[in-house]
Parts: sequence; C-alpha cells; structure tokens
Amino acid sequence: MKKIVVVGGGTGNFAVLRGLKNYDVDISAVVSMADDGGSTGILRDELGVLPPGDVRQCLIALSNSSRLMRSLMNYRFEHGGLGGHSFGNLLLSALEKVTGSFEKAVEEVGRILYIKGKVIPVTTHQVRLKMILKDRRVLESEKEIYLSQEIDQGYTTIYLEPYPKANPHAIHEIMNADLVVVGPGGLHTSLIPNLLVEGVSEALRLTQAKKTFVVNLMNRKGQTTGFKVSDYLKELVRFVGADIFDYILVNAQKPAEELIQVYAQEGDLVQNDLNESRVISADLLGEFREGPKKDLLKRSLIRHDPKKLAQELMKIVTHL
Amino acid sequence: MKKIVVVGGGTGNFAVLRGLKNYDVDISAVVSMADDGGSTGILRDELGVLPPGDVRQCLIALSNSSRLMRSLMNYRFEHGGLGGHSFGNLLLSALEKVTGSFEKAVEEVGRILYIKGKVIPVTTHQVRLKMILKDRRVLESEKEIYLSQEIDQGYTTIYLEPYPKANPHAIHEIMNADLVVVGPGGLHTSLIPNLLVEGVSEALRLTQAKKTFVVNLMNRKGQTTGFKVSDYLKELVRFVGADIFDYILVNAQKPAEELIQVYAQEGDLVQNDLNESRVISADLLGEFREGPKKDLLKRSLIRHDPKKLAQELMKIVTHL
Repeated sequence: MKKIVVVGGGTGNFAVLRGLKNYDVDISAVVSMADDGGSTGILRDELGVLPPGDVRQCLIALSNSSRLMRSLMNYRFEHGGLGGHSFGNLLLSALEKVTGSFEKAVEEVGRILYIKGKVIPVTTHQVRLKMILKDRRVLESEKEIYLSQEIDQGYTTIYLEPYPKANPHAIHEIMNADLVVVGPGGLHTSLIPNLLVEGVSEALRLTQAKKTFVVNLMNRKGQTTGFKVSDYLKELVRFVGADIFDYILVNAQKPAEELIQVYAQEGDLVQNDLNESRVISADLLGEFREGPKKDLLKRSLIRHDPKKLAQELMKIVTHL
Repeated sequence: MKKIVVVGGGTGNFAVLRGLKNYDVDISAVVSMADDGGSTGILRDELGVLPPGDVRQCLIALSNSSRLMRSLMNYRFEHGGLGGHSFGNLLLSALEKVTGSFEKAVEEVGRILYIKGKVIPVTTHQVRLKMILKDRRVLESEKEIYLSQEIDQGYTTIYLEPYPKANPHAIHEIMNADLVVVGPGGLHTSLIPNLLVEGVSEALRLTQAKKTFVVNLMNRKGQTTGFKVSDYLKELVRFVGADIFDYILVNAQKPAEELIQVYAQEGDLVQNDLNESRVISADLLGEFREGPKKDLLKRSLIRHDPKKLAQELMKIVTHL
C-alpha cells in the first residue's frame, strides 16, 4: 500500500485528509504544534498542555466514527468558564493529563474515533511561534502573527522558541513515505511552523518520497496579499533549503463572482504564474452550499473539494 | 437472567454496582437527578443541562473499559475556567447538547465505556431539591441540604420543584425487576430524591420484585446524627408510603478504632436496633488502604466492599 504523509495543520489539511481517507492508502498527518489562539491558547496557558486544536481537526478528518462522535468532537461550549472550548480539545488535554503524554492522548482519541491512518505532532516540545517584522517589531505568538495585517510588508525572521527537536515518529513517517503532501494551509501559521522544527526540512530533502505542494486557493490580506504560486513556492523553498517539489497542484476553477466579492475584504485569489511541467492545474473547488450557520467564516466559502483534491493526488500516487 | 435494579445516586451506588457487575445478572441503575453541587451545579447553571455527576459515577461503576478510560472520566481539571470540572461531566453535558437528549447522552457514554447493564435518570425534568426546616427556613438546593448541619433538628417537608414525572424507562425497570436494591447513599440527598418523583414510590409498592435496603455504614453529623437502622427505615417508609422491604442488609463488622476516631468529626457508626428475620447482618467493610492522595475524604475511609456487598445480594437473588 502506498504511504502518503500530509504535512500541515489547521483547517487546510482537513480537505486533503478527508478526501484521501476513502482510498486504499496509508495516511499520516504530521501536524504543526504552533497554534496558541482561541480554545487551544487558553488550554496551553491554563493547563500547560500541548496545542490540541490542529490535531483535533486532523483526527476528525480521518475519523470513521459516527456523525454524532464527529459533532461531539467539534462541539463548542457556549457559556461560562467553558465558553469557547471545543469538546475535542478538552478530550485531548484531559487525556494528555491522565496519560502524561500528548502523543498517547492523540493515539487514544484516534482509537475512539476509529481513524484511518495516524496523526503525529511534528514535535512534542512546547514551542511558541515568533516573527520579527522588518521594522523590528516582534510578533510574540501564532495568534499575533495570524491576526497581523503587516506581514506582507516583510519580515526578517520567523522561528520557534525554544528551537525544538522533531518528534522522531514524524521524521520516520516522512522518510518512509511514497508521497509527501505539503499544504494547503496558512503559509506562516500552519506550513512554515513545521519546517522550523529541527530535522523536518532535512528529512524532506532526504526522503525518497515524491513531494507535492497543494497551493492555497486564496491569499490572506495583510499576510500574503497578491501572492502568486511562485511566491508561495519561494517561501517554502527558503525554509526547506531546496526546491524539493515534484508536483505543484493549483486550482484552475473560477469561483462564482459573488463569492469573490464577499471574500474581497479577506483576500484575493491566488494566481498561477508558473509555466512548468510539474504544475498540475485542475478544478479543485468545493461546491458552495448556503450553510445554516450565520457566522460561517467568509474564507470557507471558497474551499477545496476533498474528492477533487484526492482524485488529483491519487493520479500522482498511481504513477509512482 | 435475574434482573436487579439499584435505586440511588452519588457515591453510595458505586460499591453495589461495581460488585454486581461481575455476576451474571441484568443490572439497571436508577439515578437521582437532584444533584446541584460542584462541577454538576456549575454545568446546570451555565449550560442548562441535566445533572451529570451521579450518572457519571454509575457509568464508571458498570464500565468494562480500560483503566485509562475510567481515569479519564474521573479526571478533574485543576486550573482556570475548567477548574473543578470532571471530564466525564463535560462529556455527558456536551453529548446532551449535541443530541438534544440527556438520556441519549447517557446511552452513548454507556457505549463508549462498554458498560454492563443500563443507567437510567429517574426523571428527565429539571428539578431542584428543597427542604423546609422546622424553624421554617428553606434550604433551596441539594447542595444546601447536603451542607446543612441542622437537618437532624427536624424538617417539615422535602420536595422536588417542580414536581416531576418519572422517566417511563425507570418505572419500567422497577416493575420488571426481580430484586430492587435501595441504598446505600445520602438519605436526604440521594435516596429520598428518587422517591419524590411522581410514580416511583407507587412502582416500588406495586412491583413484584423483592426489595432490599442496604443501610449506610456511617451517619452524617447534623444530618442523621445518632440514626439507627430503624430511623433510616422509618424515613424511607414515610416517602415510599409502605414498608416494602423484604431484606435489610446491615454491616456487622467493626472498623478499626483509629478510623472511627478519625471519622468522629463527620459522624458516628450506624447501630442496628432491629431484631427481625429480614435483617441480614454481615461483614461488609472494605479493607482500608492508605491512598496516595492526601485529600482523601475521611468518610471514604470506612466504606462498603463491593465484593462482600455483591456476595450478600447474590445470596438473596439465588433464592428468588
């Protein structure tokens, strides 16, 4: 069975994992440990646990359990001291406390959710993502970086503090993969934080696996405004230390004009400026369905379709 | 297979259920819904859910899952907005929110914990336990009643507000039981609250099941100070509306003198003053083991042994 390792974190990974789950492949998700916003941030601060949020999303993406269990994992308490916490985060944090190990907690939730494959924290050390902007101001957390509107004015450094060693299991997965998929996901907040962990970029350079970069659909205003595919690639290459990508998967499908307009405040479409044979251009958009929730994030209006993504990735895999 | 229904709530039920779990019998726990203290009280106030605490303990008692899962259910968060909440309570409350039904939540957790038998809330209505003392002061909650030191000075009324209908499943279990076990447990806070639900006392009077009362080991100071077995029986009979008990199981074993002294501030031993053939007097004490926890509740030093309790109850069952 072919082994696919997906590197990322956050909601970006969800579509890739959810799509691949239905194929006869061995999947591992290597997940960033830099998240410190929202429910995850509170749990880190108050309980001293590792960040559960991104891991939770990957676990749900790979889950074969009932719809009820998946709803439970995503359920957010609305009131009082529990307000804002997602149940899945609390489960992971409580299990980390009970077992004394975040990795064991992730494994246990994987069993509870009957996941296909494995979810692996890229490091098991407590780290904070920091960024120094060109004007020397320091953004002190992933949350600050995520909310900043000034990143595309330029930054000098992005780093994890303290500089963490990789989880050996994450390195093992990358070294033994047939295909490594990087992205989609927040460039500075989900993708690069994996590459900042000691040993990860080296493993990506050394592994015999083919590497595919799945490019984001939309830029984030103030973060990657006006980025083209080549800009994303340049940033990744900077941190990997080499242009390792055998395939670059970009979306060719135009979203409905009204969605682009709704989205305009948050960012613009990523344009492809690469004319290379490794670029695979395909229709990758999910169908837009008006959801019942009014607080639907605008950025989720234009999103990858798990099936279409997986079809393209499986075409690559079957040619390996 | 013989069907045993255990009526109670709180920690009292735990030993009975844990002991019976190892026998080839059909067990149901009918559980009081009056709890409003601690983590349970906060969840009721903030989320509007039904009280999860007593149900959680019964589920754990009947659980066949790993020690890890049981530790997880009992795990209490220590800091911040989550401080004091047991994970199992959060699981039940989140599932109640997701499914829209407390009973479904209990069933689902039963599945997750591979429980033997069933746990059934005595009512699925939101109720508060109230008590009017002889001096006309009103105790407005189960928590106030539990903490009161003046109950043994006498009270005129104890009631649930609003007066709730029983959960039909609870009535069905009682009506179809071979043996009903009442107690042990807090007399006013765990046992009587079941009898205050419309239809429960009637079912206990009408069912063909044999009924056993398992008498508490210790009195609670200010609540049942100096109560003898006949005093407990009298209180139950008052609310059931008849002396329904075929068997009264009392402990004959004397605890170590030093334990009685440690316990003296909290209450005294329950003395048996009944000389009737239905009284079964047996050694029922659990062995005392110094636990690792310094904050061990004193009252748990003198406790029922699940094995011994179950052996005596099974002697009754095999003669049915």
